[in-house]
Amino acid sequence: MRSRGRPRAGSTDNRSLVLAAARELFSELGFDRTTMRAVAARAGVDPALIHHYYGNKDGLLAATLTPPAAAAQLLTGAFDDPDNAGEELVRRVIDVWETHLEVREQMAAMLRTGLSHEHAAALLRDTHRTFVLAAVGDVVADDRREFRAALIGCHLAGLLLARYLLKVPGLTAATPAELVATVGPVIQHYLTGAIPERSKLAESDSNGHRSR
Amino acid sequence: MRSRGRPRAGSTDNRSLVLAAARELFSELGFDRTTMRAVAARAGVDPALIHHYYGNKDGLLAATLTPPAAAAQLLTGAFDDPDNAGEELVRRVIDVWETHLEVREQMAAMLRTGLSHEHAAALLRDTHRTFVLAAVGDVVADDRREFRAALIGCHLAGLLLARYLLKVPGLTAATPAELVATVGPVIQHYLTGAIPERSKLAESDSNGHRSR
Repeated sequence: MRSRGRPRAGSTDNRSLVLAAARELFSELGFDRTTMRAVAARAGVDPALIHHYYGNKDGLLAATLTPPAAAAQLLTGAFDDPDNAGEELVRRVIDVWETHLEVREQMAAMLRTGLSHEHAAALLRDTHRTFVLAAVGDVVADDRREFRAALIGCHLAGLLLARYLLKVPGLTAATPAELVATVGPVIQHYLTGAIPERSKLAESDSNGHRSR
Repeated sequence: MRSRGRPRAGSTDNRSLVLAAARELFSELGFDRTTMRAVAARAGVDPALIHHYYGNKDGLLAATLTPPAAAAQLLTGAFDDPDNAGEELVRRVIDVWETHLEVREQMAAMLRTGLSHEHAAALLRDTHRTFVLAAVGDVVADDRREFRAALIGCHLAGLLLARYLLKVPGLTAATPAELVATVGPVIQHYLTGAIPERSKLAESDSNGHRSR
């Protein structure tokens, strides 16, 4: 996966070695127990280089949680045809996850870190806002777009987690086309469909709680 | 959260102390680096007791991944009225997660372990099959019920993960009634709605791949 030999010249190589090492160690040991020195040792670079690139451990964590380029470009143009954006989005997400193994590995590492460290969870939230919410905001102008973006994000994240990381058979057996045709309309609904208004739910909410 | 004092008499107390300690250590160190001795030390019990209860480390892992009683009873009767099962299911899931903090903590620990250890992922898949698939099978008799159950499971898991563990603002701002009214119909659709047939998607699948 990762070369343990001496890094070649060129900062891009060194940066990817450092980020790969940091992701592994944050996942394995958690943020608090990971030292910059240990990351440098695993990456095979001088610790001073990591400080030079990322400042401190918080900066390094932020860098490890930045989505890979393939994932970051995922949303570009996906919503150009708003009426077909749901299926297009599912198609692109599945395509990236089918073909980019490193995206899966990074999502697993991001989730593991985000589940154990509040600072990492905050960065995951920021990433979600920057990508999904920004893209949804280009399509939908109503005041529910943050809710819409979060519903879309959580459904797609659950799908990817279950299919590619936990390998739930009901999802691994489905073809990409089936997932696009089945989940796409739901994503489309969350994007542009009617979302129940909170004011009209007040009564049923209290009824719901009373009946429990 | 967890008493570090001497456990009281009674195997239920000892078992919960052992399971809580094991969940923490599996999450913190991963399965491979966690020893039975370390679990015993953190739980404040004799290592022989853990061997007596759970046999070996695999048995202990399986026990930590068993859903809490509150979660296991979640589905009982949820599908009694098949036409309203989607909303009822979301209502119950939210209710348990709002009121049982230990369920959240255990899900976080299960996911962290499942994301880093194949054996834990396999146990999560089994749990999903035992609970969600069995319940869906009581309502739907068609040959898509495994796909339906997986879609329901992954959407709900993504929702809980995003709202309670990562605390995505678009979801934490929603009321339980809003989530029930918005996500419930989608779960209902996955449960009893029309799922596209694979045979009719063959062409669009290859088109989709060709056009990429």
